[in-house]
Amino acid sequence: MIKIGIVGGTGYTGAELARLIATHPQAHIHCITSRTEQGRTLADLYPHLGAVGSSVFDYPDTAPLTECDVVFFATPHGVAMADTPALLNAGVRVIDLSADFRLTDTAVFEHYYGMQHTCPDVLAGAVYGLCELNRSAIKNAKLIANPGCYPTAVQLGLYPLVRDELVHVDDMIADCKSGISGAGRSGTIALLYGENAENFKAYGVAGHRHQPEMEQQIATFSPNNGGNVSVQFTPHLVPMTRGILATIYAPLIAPDSHTTESLTDMFKTAYANEPFVTVLSAGSHPETRHVAGTNNVHIALHKRGKRAIILVAEDNVVKGASGQAIQNMNIMMGLDETLGLSGVGLGF
Amino acid sequence: MIKIGIVGGTGYTGAELARLIATHPQAHIHCITSRTEQGRTLADLYPHLGAVGSSVFDYPDTAPLTECDVVFFATPHGVAMADTPALLNAGVRVIDLSADFRLTDTAVFEHYYGMQHTCPDVLAGAVYGLCELNRSAIKNAKLIANPGCYPTAVQLGLYPLVRDELVHVDDMIADCKSGISGAGRSGTIALLYGENAENFKAYGVAGHRHQPEMEQQIATFSPNNGGNVSVQFTPHLVPMTRGILATIYAPLIAPDSHTTESLTDMFKTAYANEPFVTVLSAGSHPETRHVAGTNNVHIALHKRGKRAIILVAEDNVVKGASGQAIQNMNIMMGLDETLGLSGVGLGF
Amino acid sequence: MIKIGIVGGTGYTGAELARLIATHPQAHIHCITSRTEQGRTLADLYPHLGAVGSSVFDYPDTAPLTECDVVFFATPHGVAMADTPALLNAGVRVIDLSADFRLTDTAVFEHYYGMQHTCPDVLAGAVYGLCELNRSAIKNAKLIANPGCYPTAVQLGLYPLVRDELVHVDDMIADCKSGISGAGRSGTIALLYGENAENFKAYGVAGHRHQPEMEQQIATFSPNNGGNVSVQFTPHLVPMTRGILATIYAPLIAPDSHTTESLTDMFKTAYANEPFVTVLSAGSHPETRHVAGTNNVHIALHKRGKRAIILVAEDNVVKGASGQAIQNMNIMMGLDETLGLSGVGLGF
Amino acid sequence: MIKIGIVGGTGYTGAELARLIATHPQAHIHCITSRTEQGRTLADLYPHLGAVGSSVFDYPDTAPLTECDVVFFATPHGVAMADTPALLNAGVRVIDLSADFRLTDTAVFEHYYGMQHTCPDVLAGAVYGLCELNRSAIKNAKLIANPGCYPTAVQLGLYPLVRDELVHVDDMIADCKSGISGAGRSGTIALLYGENAENFKAYGVAGHRHQPEMEQQIATFSPNNGGNVSVQFTPHLVPMTRGILATIYAPLIAPDSHTTESLTDMFKTAYANEPFVTVLSAGSHPETRHVAGTNNVHIALHKRGKRAIILVAEDNVVKGASGQAIQNMNIMMGLDETLGLSGVGLGF
Repeated sequence: MIKIGIVGGTGYTGAELARLIATHPQAHIHCITSRTEQGRTLADLYPHLGAVGSSVFDYPDTAPLTECDVVFFATPHGVAMADTPALLNAGVRVIDLSADFRLTDTAVFEHYYGMQHTCPDVLAGAVYGLCELNRSAIKNAKLIANPGCYPTAVQLGLYPLVRDELVHVDDMIADCKSGISGAGRSGTIALLYGENAENFKAYGVAGHRHQPEMEQQIATFSPNNGGNVSVQFTPHLVPMTRGILATIYAPLIAPDSHTTESLTDMFKTAYANEPFVTVLSAGSHPETRHVAGTNNVHIALHKRGKRAIILVAEDNVVKGASGQAIQNMNIMMGLDETLGLSGVGLGF
Repeated sequence: MIKIGIVGGTGYTGAELARLIATHPQAHIHCITSRTEQGRTLADLYPHLGAVGSSVFDYPDTAPLTECDVVFFATPHGVAMADTPALLNAGVRVIDLSADFRLTDTAVFEHYYGMQHTCPDVLAGAVYGLCELNRSAIKNAKLIANPGCYPTAVQLGLYPLVRDELVHVDDMIADCKSGISGAGRSGTIALLYGENAENFKAYGVAGHRHQPEMEQQIATFSPNNGGNVSVQFTPHLVPMTRGILATIYAPLIAPDSHTTESLTDMFKTAYANEPFVTVLSAGSHPETRHVAGTNNVHIALHKRGKRAIILVAEDNVVKGASGQAIQNMNIMMGLDETLGLSGVGLGF
Repeated sequence: MIKIGIVGGTGYTGAELARLIATHPQAHIHCITSRTEQGRTLADLYPHLGAVGSSVFDYPDTAPLTECDVVFFATPHGVAMADTPALLNAGVRVIDLSADFRLTDTAVFEHYYGMQHTCPDVLAGAVYGLCELNRSAIKNAKLIANPGCYPTAVQLGLYPLVRDELVHVDDMIADCKSGISGAGRSGTIALLYGENAENFKAYGVAGHRHQPEMEQQIATFSPNNGGNVSVQFTPHLVPMTRGILATIYAPLIAPDSHTTESLTDMFKTAYANEPFVTVLSAGSHPETRHVAGTNNVHIALHKRGKRAIILVAEDNVVKGASGQAIQNMNIMMGLDETLGLSGVGLGF
Repeated sequence: MIKIGIVGGTGYTGAELARLIATHPQAHIHCITSRTEQGRTLADLYPHLGAVGSSVFDYPDTAPLTECDVVFFATPHGVAMADTPALLNAGVRVIDLSADFRLTDTAVFEHYYGMQHTCPDVLAGAVYGLCELNRSAIKNAKLIANPGCYPTAVQLGLYPLVRDELVHVDDMIADCKSGISGAGRSGTIALLYGENAENFKAYGVAGHRHQPEMEQQIATFSPNNGGNVSVQFTPHLVPMTRGILATIYAPLIAPDSHTTESLTDMFKTAYANEPFVTVLSAGSHPETRHVAGTNNVHIALHKRGKRAIILVAEDNVVKGASGQAIQNMNIMMGLDETLGLSGVGLGF
């Protein structure tokens, strides 16, 4: 059994890690930390976990994290950066769900996250954990930068088109919509029920931290023109708890060569062996409720005018965070990639 | 492997049966019927089911239901009544999620459901499937009347108190609140999003079909005064999809002999061996999201003035319908009662 | 024009006062205070107010409150108590939307609110502002204790029955359900969207501050047995922003003397001249959306067994707080009681 | 007093017309029709209307529509087309909230709406009623084609840029999100609460009826290149009742000549005299709740890369339908344009 440590277990991604690990046949929680809840059980805080939430919160400084095989950071930015070097030295694998190891250029990191990067050498060895697109590197990784929720959806939606040089990568638009859990679980007026119910708005249009992450990673699979990758990323907030829908507009280099059907076929081929990616029939409209609670991604294609419109639905807390983290662990540890992740969603 | 038939697979309870059976290690869907969707797969209609929704809808009249070990009716009232006798004759066990076999008195059935009962002899052999309270009869049953969603919550909340003759059974109140899926999946203006979002109301205060069911069944475990059982049942509609919370007011015969703690202890003892019933610590407040998507029931006790207040949370589609149906099947077939029902809820 | 001061303008009740006063032909905001937002306009914080939100927040200590004709306190408990004596001395009328002047017994106040009452002499002169039930005293008041949201609904639902001695006042139950704005606008995890959407729960069952307020006030219109008034009050939280539905169970002294129709007629007579109270036809089910955004109260009656069941719907922020506060001002100032309060609700 | 007739009073737009007219000082409902509800009052169906809903539904064929000054059609497509010629002949002004008179090319109408246009001559005289952009023609109109909800938002968001030839009109994108009331009030499974709560999806990506309407009208204010107007319109469904947010991407002809601030200033100038259009400060994010229930439109501008991003929030039922219809009536009848439309929104 793989011994798991979770740093920061009181937020939504920490609780979701615990929920998913509960059904994992080859892993269990060895320790879970919280600065505010030590001594309580996970189930005290999250009663839906019931018997599988029996782990007791440890104070971070004294938790036996170095005894773990894998430690997940489900913390605000800055925490993983501080603690990871020692864990790696102790032979522990690390999967960071925060942004500390996502951006390879520390200047960009410092610009977007407002803090200095304290371990650029460790950062240099981190592997970006978008499983479907980076599987071989993940297999040998010691430190995984688990992708952001929006970048996961946008990259999966663009990958086949960019890889095959079918779209102008310097002029793509990702109009994305997220449920409110994406903003985390903190006592903030902007996240109150009364501020979000029966409301819809964009936010961060002037610049969001996930844009440089998307562009950096899309460049890695863009054959010739990686330097030109530009995604106009516009996030919006939906009055629902879980789910992201990305509506991506990609200008086709040869629009007349494609149809909704041909694009769909191409994506079906590209993702044919992916257990968590389903390409819907041509002209479909994925719905977030159909993937909520699961690690699944639903993608549909439309050809309209000069553009491909790609619709991608995921659960921001699962494939966009904790589920993908476990998928990364499975790959790193040589396990079946779907362990702990085969649950069927509620649907309604 | 147990061969399952589902009659009426297009509603919420039919889809939920399919979702739960997908994780059941010893049962699979042999056939599923629909009058409107034959030829389509379950997943066409319910994309969240994905690979586990590969069953193709059959037209009811030609579906191989008699080849099944167990047939579930997830149909409007009247259908099960018509088809059950032939299935039983063919040696098929039947679990009816509708109300056709819940009320033992056909006159009461006819009054509340507005149709004549066509097989009173079969009705006489039906077993009421509230698993925790009727397990030994269920073991030997051929035909299960799966309980209504509200009666499940209310009976579990009252059982220890009534059984031990601690409350005046002629003066109980069950103020219940349900998510909107309880009203089914039919194209009705009253069920529209725009009619229910940001709204709360009572309904059916003058008389609801679940009241005679509750009273009939509570009488079965009320030692001496079954004839007097009276529950003022008041249902309300909550702007959420899944979940029931029952707030039950039961007048204590000897109020001074009880405390919140003593009542809690008594319930903990009564349900100590029940895998799906959790009695929360004294003075708690169960939340529907903590049981949503699961077969779990959370109960909390409060002693206030002369009354016990019992709070019961369940998922109306699972423990209140399809989950309990599978629990009944497990008991009938001599299986571990939790098979297919051990999933952890999403919680948020 | 009446000069209005609002102390505490950043919460929901403060913003709602501003919204309602905007349509009041004989009153305007002279000053509005905030400890955190001084210098900003109301519309900066609440863009829906647009042009009618042009008032600039003053710091409380320097705001010209003594220049006002009426000052409303839309503050947490304790603030009004501190500031009211000086305002009254300056000849300013005060309407307190907090609980500081609701409970006549300071010991009860101190027990439930955890602070000492600092001006019991001023408290002695406060008038409880449930307009329909206390209009003549309000006319001559200098200080109004604006009622709690739940007590408003429950008292209006019980008043005709209690006044006419038709119910056993020592055994009433008020099972109440409120939207989440009732908990205010503070950065608290329990109020987050993700903690409340798709959820329903009771809270405060062991004892809620509004229970002594209800019981105290019901006793004032209970002819003989005021000392015995007991209301088992059970509040619940509904995933919606605005609205309260109270489901009240009142045991009839002579059950056989009443019907749903006779109770309805009696209430129609009792409230015939009330502009904000509508008694629905016999056997109806009021819905919170039908009163949302308005000062209206919808009441329906049902006779069931030995009890009257009274259903009362109000908007907790309007009739349950800011709307009733303005109604109180209108009465105090000798104006038409409906000024500023005649808006039609959105309904959906 | 202007005598108003409403054909089709049972849907959301009909009810909203009634709500708004209730506060109109110079108009009242003379008759309102329904094929299903004749004899009932508006308030029976829509209790939130209370006293202002006292109009009794007439059967359409016998309603005294020709006695009216203005008749509003709040009906499915095809009804207005059938009845308008006779009303115009009788001297009645007509405002059609359906699409019957929006598309000037009957072939396009027939393609998108699947029915033949029966009065192309009347159509030729219809005036497109987007008030801010077509006021002088509206003043003299006898027949108004009230704009679609999405086209209203998109045109207001693009107008200043297109008029001044600042954007490439052949390559614009309108990614729009609407509350569920936009789909009307009919008993359809797709509109159920359980199908929409906690869900987000696109729909109609392959082609939506509002796209030709947008493109046709934008061409009218596009100085030189009207023939090239192309808007990729992608509608989405938000789990809320009211509201539209349009996120519009317009490629700037001279990107370096603009900033977020300069675009904002330009829009502030363009809409300076418009009572219902508010241009928010540079870089803002309009929220649908801030305009819900009102005829207001909130617009914010962002310059990003080569594009202007325009965010537009409106209430789809008010400015997107019934409110604009009344605004049109006010203009046609020579009244103050804001009569009946000056209500302040609830905001939360």
